[in-house]
Amino acid sequence: MSYVLVAIACALVGLGTAGYYAMWVLKQDAGTPLMQKISKHIQEGALAFLTREYRVIAIVLVAVAIAMGVFLSASGGWVMSIAYLIGAVFSGSAGFIGLTIATRANSRTTQAATKSMPKALEVAFRGGAVMGLTVAGLGLLGVSLCFIVLLYATGLVKDLAIVEGAAWSIFGMTLPASTIFSDVIPGFGLGASTIALFARVGGGIYTKAADVGADLVGKVEAGIPEDDPRNPAVIADNVGDNVGDVAGMGADLYESYVGAIVAPLALGALYLGFKGALLPVLIAAVGMVCSAIATLFVRGKEDGHPGRALSTGTYGAAILTLIACYFLVMWLLPVGTAFTSVVAGATVSHAVVNPLGFFIAIFVGLAAGMAIGQASEIYTSDAYSAVKKIAEAGKTGPATVILSGLATGMQSTAASIVFLVIAMGVSYYAGNWAMPDGGGIFAVGLSAIGMLATTGIVVAVDAYGPIADNAGGISEMSHQGPEVRAITDSLDSVGNTTAAIAKGFAIASAAVTALAYFQLYASKVGLTTIDILDNKVIIGLFIGGMFPFLFSSMAINAVGRAAQARIEEVRRQFREITGLREGVEGVEGEYGKCVDIATSAALREMVLPASLTVALPIIMGLWSKSALGGFLAGSLVVGFLLAIFMANAGGAWDNAKKYVEGGQLGGKNSDTHKATVVGDTVGDPFKDTAGPSMNILIKVMSVIAVVFAPLFTRG
Amino acid sequence: MSYVLVAIACALVGLGTAGYYAMWVLKQDAGTPLMQKISKHIQEGALAFLTREYRVIAIVLVAVAIAMGVFLSASGGWVMSIAYLIGAVFSGSAGFIGLTIATRANSRTTQAATKSMPKALEVAFRGGAVMGLTVAGLGLLGVSLCFIVLLYATGLVKDLAIVEGAAWSIFGMTLPASTIFSDVIPGFGLGASTIALFARVGGGIYTKAADVGADLVGKVEAGIPEDDPRNPAVIADNVGDNVGDVAGMGADLYESYVGAIVAPLALGALYLGFKGALLPVLIAAVGMVCSAIATLFVRGKEDGHPGRALSTGTYGAAILTLIACYFLVMWLLPVGTAFTSVVAGATVSHAVVNPLGFFIAIFVGLAAGMAIGQASEIYTSDAYSAVKKIAEAGKTGPATVILSGLATGMQSTAASIVFLVIAMGVSYYAGNWAMPDGGGIFAVGLSAIGMLATTGIVVAVDAYGPIADNAGGISEMSHQGPEVRAITDSLDSVGNTTAAIAKGFAIASAAVTALAYFQLYASKVGLTTIDILDNKVIIGLFIGGMFPFLFSSMAINAVGRAAQARIEEVRRQFREITGLREGVEGVEGEYGKCVDIATSAALREMVLPASLTVALPIIMGLWSKSALGGFLAGSLVVGFLLAIFMANAGGAWDNAKKYVEGGQLGGKNSDTHKATVVGDTVGDPFKDTAGPSMNILIKVMSVIAVVFAPLFTRG
Repeated sequence: MSYVLVAIACALVGLGTAGYYAMWVLKQDAGTPLMQKISKHIQEGALAFLTREYRVIAIVLVAVAIAMGVFLSASGGWVMSIAYLIGAVFSGSAGFIGLTIATRANSRTTQAATKSMPKALEVAFRGGAVMGLTVAGLGLLGVSLCFIVLLYATGLVKDLAIVEGAAWSIFGMTLPASTIFSDVIPGFGLGASTIALFARVGGGIYTKAADVGADLVGKVEAGIPEDDPRNPAVIADNVGDNVGDVAGMGADLYESYVGAIVAPLALGALYLGFKGALLPVLIAAVGMVCSAIATLFVRGKEDGHPGRALSTGTYGAAILTLIACYFLVMWLLPVGTAFTSVVAGATVSHAVVNPLGFFIAIFVGLAAGMAIGQASEIYTSDAYSAVKKIAEAGKTGPATVILSGLATGMQSTAASIVFLVIAMGVSYYAGNWAMPDGGGIFAVGLSAIGMLATTGIVVAVDAYGPIADNAGGISEMSHQGPEVRAITDSLDSVGNTTAAIAKGFAIASAAVTALAYFQLYASKVGLTTIDILDNKVIIGLFIGGMFPFLFSSMAINAVGRAAQARIEEVRRQFREITGLREGVEGVEGEYGKCVDIATSAALREMVLPASLTVALPIIMGLWSKSALGGFLAGSLVVGFLLAIFMANAGGAWDNAKKYVEGGQLGGKNSDTHKATVVGDTVGDPFKDTAGPSMNILIKVMSVIAVVFAPLFTRG
Repeated sequence: MSYVLVAIACALVGLGTAGYYAMWVLKQDAGTPLMQKISKHIQEGALAFLTREYRVIAIVLVAVAIAMGVFLSASGGWVMSIAYLIGAVFSGSAGFIGLTIATRANSRTTQAATKSMPKALEVAFRGGAVMGLTVAGLGLLGVSLCFIVLLYATGLVKDLAIVEGAAWSIFGMTLPASTIFSDVIPGFGLGASTIALFARVGGGIYTKAADVGADLVGKVEAGIPEDDPRNPAVIADNVGDNVGDVAGMGADLYESYVGAIVAPLALGALYLGFKGALLPVLIAAVGMVCSAIATLFVRGKEDGHPGRALSTGTYGAAILTLIACYFLVMWLLPVGTAFTSVVAGATVSHAVVNPLGFFIAIFVGLAAGMAIGQASEIYTSDAYSAVKKIAEAGKTGPATVILSGLATGMQSTAASIVFLVIAMGVSYYAGNWAMPDGGGIFAVGLSAIGMLATTGIVVAVDAYGPIADNAGGISEMSHQGPEVRAITDSLDSVGNTTAAIAKGFAIASAAVTALAYFQLYASKVGLTTIDILDNKVIIGLFIGGMFPFLFSSMAINAVGRAAQARIEEVRRQFREITGLREGVEGVEGEYGKCVDIATSAALREMVLPASLTVALPIIMGLWSKSALGGFLAGSLVVGFLLAIFMANAGGAWDNAKKYVEGGQLGGKNSDTHKATVVGDTVGDPFKDTAGPSMNILIKVMSVIAVVFAPLFTRG
């Protein structure tokens, strides 16, 4: 009992820190009336987006919860439904809180930039830290609460061990501890996944449709420049940054974080009993506190580089977490910890021989996450050759820019795969060294939670990006002087780097989370092998591999159509609101309406891809559980590859354009610049819509397989 | 004995028909002196390419043959080396003969077009048929010869059965029949693969570098228009069409064809003894004769559509082959055919229950090949909506053209995967229905040879394309009248369609061939399961999935660098050859030199990707044979997806540009046209370099796994 209370306490430490930062941010000077007005529009837009989105999600949540209750009644259906709803509500709340603060931190950052860089950095980072710590805090709190209510409160667990033969009776069902670990708690993960699906895919379509819409409105409506505040789509564009990089990324990493606790928790229960289930929760708890502490390290120096301050925070959290995890593992699973489990009908005895092996797994997970993030940075930052080459290619026109970017994205998959594979291989061997027979699979799960333990600060650093970006926009729209803009620009450029790293990290974490769910799926349906030589498995592999391509094509097309819906609304407003086109004092576009219509369009575009994402694994599973195994493996591998490919190609194009805009190769408005703009436009839906969707895709499909596993009975 | 002699006779029928067509083509009027001169330059260029390429290949062949002899000496190494060299020499000869005739048929087609469309169609098609029938004829002849020499001549086989306990002693080795089936004959397949690797990848780089080089020379050398015959790169460009679509596609399908005979042959020997080994050879023999007969159906009508004539040939061959295969299967494997085999240590008895099931497998293979080809047509022809949408996207600039094309390519993977998976599933079930315990795996192999049985006519129709294309070029360069050009244009436009269908077919056949090799690999190394839950297998799956991306990026980058080498050579010629720039009568560029330099550049660019293709499977296999299993599956799935994606995106962009050039959406030189030109340029290395390389990649890696299987001993 007390151990889980520790985890809850740690979650509250994180949430408390978030609360403190939120108060602190709100107390800062919100800037001039003009700054406040622009910021207010962004806030209202973000709220309009969330309101509309949550209304749709609410319907989906209720429908899924009922379906789970009815179809999975034999394995804790209704209890699972409740866990599911809690998971969703917690994720949704994190998104709401984070977005609320982030959209208030923007003008305050601009205002702080009129004072000094360190001050502005502090406001922007603390604004992001609210999101980061809330995501991690609510994730940990939710899992811990499920844990404590379901197990301790029902008397299934006592003194670090499951009470032999005990079961909980509720709604006329009998739930032993194993059902709760492997069936009910993953329901919580599915709740997080549902929100992530909407926030990431719907948000991604929204964001880029806003971007494209704002760009094109200038072309279809004569006399309205692209960035003119009269254009209602401009505010929608700024809202989009927050929706994508704050709410979307937050929900994505929330899902990974929860999955990385839930899946090893269930696997740990299988191989190591209660202590095995407890370890992932405690690792997350430790990482939570270390992340909260590390946020204090982030302080800019007057003549320092703002990026260094952020790195100090991230690496500080990682080092603290590793040190704490070492002692945690040594204390919880000392040499000789023994456990007897029933794996696929056979009783197996396990004993921990080298606990250090489990620590190594945590370490390589964390290191791989950082390494994959760094690899993204190398392929997408103009400090390295890949981006420069793409910009050079602009000299021979847009086609060579596109080819060069596509080749860069494809090439970048190699480094990420190598790091991922090393982490998987090393953690597996280390796990089997730590505990022969079963330690390997558990350790791969531990590497996932190792990677995600510092989610709090990773999301904080990522959410800092759009705040800095918005602050730059506001400083421009509110006509600040060049010294202020120099500060916001320097913060913004660091934001691009952190965004690239966070993207790589999000993809890697999605892959390890999906892998852990995949192993859990196999355990749950009792598959001891998923044999590629079996015709059904290879068919599953092919279909699973195809789906990420199909999904990406739908996402890319959706952006185009959603942008069209937005353009039409903007034209309607110009037509019907007198004085808007002329810029009459006091006349404003209906920003909320514009955001609302754009949100509906984005949500409508989600229906088909989202339905397929949910339906395909269930159909495959009903056909054959080994086919579903192949399907999950295929979608995992291809989804990961496409995610890396699209994120890095998109990021590289973006920065190649910025590199030219920075005065290289002829600078802004040169032919080379125009060529790189084409690359950037192609890259937008790649890196902000289709690419990030892949993270969700691979996680959602694998958690659905886990949750609906009891329905799948045919080999 | 007599049965294999029948196969040899059928091969000779095909080769005889090819010889007849070759004579016939050469007898046609070669056209005006100017036509002949241009054609001669193309011939010389093609010869220069082949000479240079074969010189490099010869070194590789000898090195590989020695390596096989030394490292695989325990399993028939030196005999395998000989089979390997024969396989390579036969494939190389087919390429040489086909290219020689194709480059002579071009001006003759132009000349025939001055008479009538049916006449021109006949010349172009028969020119292509030489390649098609030679590819299939030499493939079948080679396998049959290996078969007859290795088995009959050594007394291992008598009366449709393997002589119990007999073995052949040679070079101090003892080779039982099983070794010959599963070790030696696949060596022949590897020979074909080596040639395909160079012809397809090297040829692909060459082709597109020529294209890009010719385009860009106009920009860097003022006053030389893109298509000016003074530009030595123009001839290289025409050579490229032949090198890519005749020699490259021919070697690709030769490899598939041989693989589709060799792998089911070895699997058939395993599950059904000698008759099982014989069936694939006889199916190929039947398909050979039917293809030769069907070439006679291809006759244009004065007011008919040339595409219809070609379709009649293709479908005619398919129907004839199916009818013949029905009787073949019923006769060779009647109800009750029984066989006892040792599969992975256990003795299993098989008996044929429903021979119809094997016929069904052949049927679905053939149908799937056609269906995947048709799907390519739907996504890449301007008669359908996908291409029109891409052209429409040109109204908002090149970025939307690129996005629309990428989305189309991604979407098109779904249809192809569905057809492939249906063929795999149906043939597997049909095979198990035909013969429980083992019939399924054999039947999947049969579907591969079913798909490829009509290779003769498929390659003929494909090779027709570049002949018609060249004929159009020659008619333009030799200033023919509009009625002649109308005829060559109509032939050329049909050629684009057939090229798209052949591309889809080549990809599908590569996938089924690789699948058959994959099953053979597992049998050879004694893997009864390749378990995705095994950490090594999933690591293999990830690395295998990554490699096609890495390879594609190398291929795309190679085109850019090789184009650069060519541009420099052209500039040198303009600088050093006095009178070339001014177009002085009698002064000509050094076309051969230009081709030679371009060939070297292309071959140099192949070193790294080709080495990795050979080395990676061996390294994986030495580490763990299950990891190699995962690796092959990953590369197969991802390679297939990327092949479809790149081929169809590229084809769609190409035709979107042509659609606009045909006068739609503003026509040539409009902004929309310029936008679609960007798409076409991006699409070129997609559809002609990186895309087709994927076919080779997946086959080469799986045949290498089969051939080097004896070295892989660790689970």
